[in-house]
Amino acid sequence: VTRARKRFREILFGSVCVPAASIFDPLSARIAHMLGWEVCKLSGSVAKAADLAVPDGVPMANISDMVDICRRITRVADVSLIVDADDGGGGALNVLRTVQELEAAGVSAIEIEDNQVPPRIQGASSRHALLVSKEEHVGKLKAAVAARRDADTVIVARTSALHQLPLDEALDRIRDYSRTGVEAIMLPGLPPRGLADIVALHQASDLPLCLLGLPLEATKDEAFLAANNVRIRFLGLGTYKVAVKAIHDTLKHLKNGGSPADLRDREASEELLQAVTRIPELLEWERTYVVQ
Amino acid sequence: VTRARKRFREILFGSVCVPAASIFDPLSARIAHMLGWEVCKLSGSVAKAADLAVPDGVPMANISDMVDICRRITRVADVSLIVDADDGGGGALNVLRTVQELEAAGVSAIEIEDNQVPPRIQGASSRHALLVSKEEHVGKLKAAVAARRDADTVIVARTSALHQLPLDEALDRIRDYSRTGVEAIMLPGLPPRGLADIVALHQASDLPLCLLGLPLEATKDEAFLAANNVRIRFLGLGTYKVAVKAIHDTLKHLKNGGSPADLRDREASEELLQAVTRIPELLEWERTYVVQ
Amino acid sequence: VTRARKRFREILFGSVCVPAASIFDPLSARIAHMLGWEVCKLSGSVAKAADLAVPDGVPMANISDMVDICRRITRVADVSLIVDADDGGGGALNVLRTVQELEAAGVSAIEIEDNQVPPRIQGASSRHALLVSKEEHVGKLKAAVAARRDADTVIVARTSALHQLPLDEALDRIRDYSRTGVEAIMLPGLPPRGLADIVALHQASDLPLCLLGLPLEATKDEAFLAANNVRIRFLGLGTYKVAVKAIHDTLKHLKNGGSPADLRDREASEELLQAVTRIPELLEWERTYVVQ
Amino acid sequence: VTRARKRFREILFGSVCVPAASIFDPLSARIAHMLGWEVCKLSGSVAKAADLAVPDGVPMANISDMVDICRRITRVADVSLIVDADDGGGGALNVLRTVQELEAAGVSAIEIEDNQVPPRIQGASSRHALLVSKEEHVGKLKAAVAARRDADTVIVARTSALHQLPLDEALDRIRDYSRTGVEAIMLPGLPPRGLADIVALHQASDLPLCLLGLPLEATKDEAFLAANNVRIRFLGLGTYKVAVKAIHDTLKHLKNGGSPADLRDREASEELLQAVTRIPELLEWERTYVVQ
Repeated sequence: VTRARKRFREILFGSVCVPAASIFDPLSARIAHMLGWEVCKLSGSVAKAADLAVPDGVPMANISDMVDICRRITRVADVSLIVDADDGGGGALNVLRTVQELEAAGVSAIEIEDNQVPPRIQGASSRHALLVSKEEHVGKLKAAVAARRDADTVIVARTSALHQLPLDEALDRIRDYSRTGVEAIMLPGLPPRGLADIVALHQASDLPLCLLGLPLEATKDEAFLAANNVRIRFLGLGTYKVAVKAIHDTLKHLKNGGSPADLRDREASEELLQAVTRIPELLEWERTYVVQ
Repeated sequence: VTRARKRFREILFGSVCVPAASIFDPLSARIAHMLGWEVCKLSGSVAKAADLAVPDGVPMANISDMVDICRRITRVADVSLIVDADDGGGGALNVLRTVQELEAAGVSAIEIEDNQVPPRIQGASSRHALLVSKEEHVGKLKAAVAARRDADTVIVARTSALHQLPLDEALDRIRDYSRTGVEAIMLPGLPPRGLADIVALHQASDLPLCLLGLPLEATKDEAFLAANNVRIRFLGLGTYKVAVKAIHDTLKHLKNGGSPADLRDREASEELLQAVTRIPELLEWERTYVVQ
Repeated sequence: VTRARKRFREILFGSVCVPAASIFDPLSARIAHMLGWEVCKLSGSVAKAADLAVPDGVPMANISDMVDICRRITRVADVSLIVDADDGGGGALNVLRTVQELEAAGVSAIEIEDNQVPPRIQGASSRHALLVSKEEHVGKLKAAVAARRDADTVIVARTSALHQLPLDEALDRIRDYSRTGVEAIMLPGLPPRGLADIVALHQASDLPLCLLGLPLEATKDEAFLAANNVRIRFLGLGTYKVAVKAIHDTLKHLKNGGSPADLRDREASEELLQAVTRIPELLEWERTYVVQ
Repeated sequence: VTRARKRFREILFGSVCVPAASIFDPLSARIAHMLGWEVCKLSGSVAKAADLAVPDGVPMANISDMVDICRRITRVADVSLIVDADDGGGGALNVLRTVQELEAAGVSAIEIEDNQVPPRIQGASSRHALLVSKEEHVGKLKAAVAARRDADTVIVARTSALHQLPLDEALDRIRDYSRTGVEAIMLPGLPPRGLADIVALHQASDLPLCLLGLPLEATKDEAFLAANNVRIRFLGLGTYKVAVKAIHDTLKHLKNGGSPADLRDREASEELLQAVTRIPELLEWERTYVVQ
């Protein structure tokens, strides 16, 4: 955990923009680890879908659910895990528990966003209505920073202000968020004014940025990324979506009477399966510590 | 749970051989449920691999791990779940806890096998050495039957006796197992003497059979299946193996700099994704119970 | 579970008022079971205090926490458990998950109250402000009833309307609650107009009543209890409070250098300790099922 | 966690013998923390009794159960926790998982003992038969040391060799255990030859000692303790035993129709109850971080 947090800080305060693997459960995290991904992002949407079959954006899942998932992930994958903590579970009091439990579950970075979770799937008619007031949110971010027991844990201010407010007002918020002790700013998607908003954001805050939804050309423009302090970029939720289709197609094939033999080409090799369950390392462990 | 158990009994004591979906986590169970699979089988190997990244056949995972996985499965999928409880966790005392906790987790059928879990990955040089004595195992099966709190829960005697013992001795065991109150016999794979062993088994026990590893021609020979009381057949671990490859290939593609856009064809449709998280049902629930 | 639910219904729809044991964790539930208590009540306040060290009346604990506690209680104690589910976890959507998970954890009755959980310890200046609107709450109670998977699970409408509203308005609410399919009404304490309110409540609803805070003379007035359909009465949170003091005094004595020998008189007997861990039953189990 | 581990090391490698509080659940750990206890000891016997109602010394509880209890303890109590991991869960392979999961649960020290857990309550006729071979146990201890992810976690070699073997053979074992990288030796009770065995043990190993069952005069003989490197001493299981009796007497009193009012003197004060749930700290937190 300590090492994973330190590696994450090196990336965040380094000079290169690193992509993060989107994972959704222990298995996908384990495979990401095997492939050498350093940073993994656990979005609430896919975590809750895979474990609880509930949609995101309604409060049917809670922080204890997310803590359990994170704990099961960090025990099988030595990666730096960024976790989506929604609105921190409520007010500053909830943020205290949220941060401490996610930290105990071994995550490296915790996102607290300035949007409330809507009480219904349909959400509020105006997303704007769901923005927590600036004063309240600044208090929550300070609480999150103070709640940490390990100073290496990073609190990330995830904000949809640029999506919901006039630019000036949004930047004013982000400026205030940046003074709370949080160590990164995250945008949930490309803001309405595109890359220009990112430039403006960087002028308002010198914190490193974590971005979702960058257009392809931007991800290749290393000068742009470096100039604007973009340190982590996300690549969408493909891992989960591909897994859902693969599982679905397999079970549908068999349900329709298809032969298991037809699946061979789509199945992992024996070597890959053994790597997932750590058989090579465990055999070595046996050779070292078990009397023959 | 009650309904799932009753449906399972109808299949077991019916007249048709039904295939079971192999699932390994809540997500695959949820998708099996959506596709109309009635019976799902949770093998220890894939359950432990996906959740804990540990191999099967060593005691690194325990019954509490399996209980947790079953509980998370039954809360998202209304299916009849058969769960692999290895050797029941140890002796007759452990069987008591194992059966009661798996039952509380909502499973429909619990397999207790007559092999011990080997202490090492390499296993014993002779699998034979791992067979629990007949007397001890009969006591464990009786204990499993007595431990149930719901008489609808099915205890399944899973046996590798046919694989490890001379035919007579194996049938003698199975005859004794059949008198303990268990309600089905399961074979972990096609026995050494092939279908002839299944015929012999059926002559020794009139309990319904659950079989793994049936050759393709046998699965299509309905007269054979009916004549030998074969009620559930398994189709291998394809679901897990396909998911591992899909996740691996996706994360490898992105790690190598591939574009997220290239994944589109392999991703689940929006409709499928919404079905996983029950959005249609939940919206209907909101329309019915939330004041507009 | 099935039997515990049926026993609870017999009490609820019987003719006698039964006291419920206040328990707060698996140990106290186990001891209540040993002493023959049929009904146990798990209040959120003591459950959260003992397991999480968080106060009641703030949303620091969530439904997953309560589910975990209930599950651990029902596995060691064969009692009918009434559990405090606060406001059901939020709106009608949350009620769906809350009811299904508590049911899966083996409880017999689930209380859903018409007060929101305040976001802060200090609460709202006026408790009145926290009452959920009648229409919304009726929807939530209907949702709770519909969410059950076992028709024997009892949904209890816990209401503080009598404490916060004029009598007419309160009775109007309770009348509407009574038509939702809930099967009992619970008051969190003696209402402001005392026993007269209970008489009025009974005239408004013929559902059985569960009461906290009855004055001593009322608990002895069997004619009053019978006439007003009072079926379950609570006896305060003494179990928890006594345990806290016992643990505190012991650890303080030893911290101050006191001798462990001084504690002897306050320690449970060996026989009692063995009963907690079921040693007599387990030895009998071994004699029956383990080959000697 | 980091600080708790460092504080524990200071005691272990300091010059004073410190008593450890015996705790059995989050509530008792929280109260120990409030009273200023620095070191808490979680014995398997009371942990399993309180949470699972199963006896010690049979394998009905497993390492996942203990991990869950430890995690719930460390989230409410900032203490250095020593946990009893029995035989480490089995061989060297199990030790790997046991150590990593207990470490992730925030404990400071993990005891691995050289006795196997007997398969039955009655145990083996000779305890001697249950001693793991020296070679195997040395491998397990080396595995435990290597499994740590935080070098500050202490592995404790708990041994009953002095109770079961001739002195020379016992000391030979302890000498070998001491060279595996473990950082303390623990005795489960006063050895057969009394304090003389402790002197002999200290001559065989210069590791700090953790002792259970010291006679009263020895605990006061600071010269003896210092001379023999005794750093932690245990005070029996009084906390649990007193709690069981307090809960039992309360529930029995009420079951017999006794008045709740009679319990007043035995109940914790309001101030103590508020301290358990951290109300003073949380109110201060609200004043600091919640916009008024």
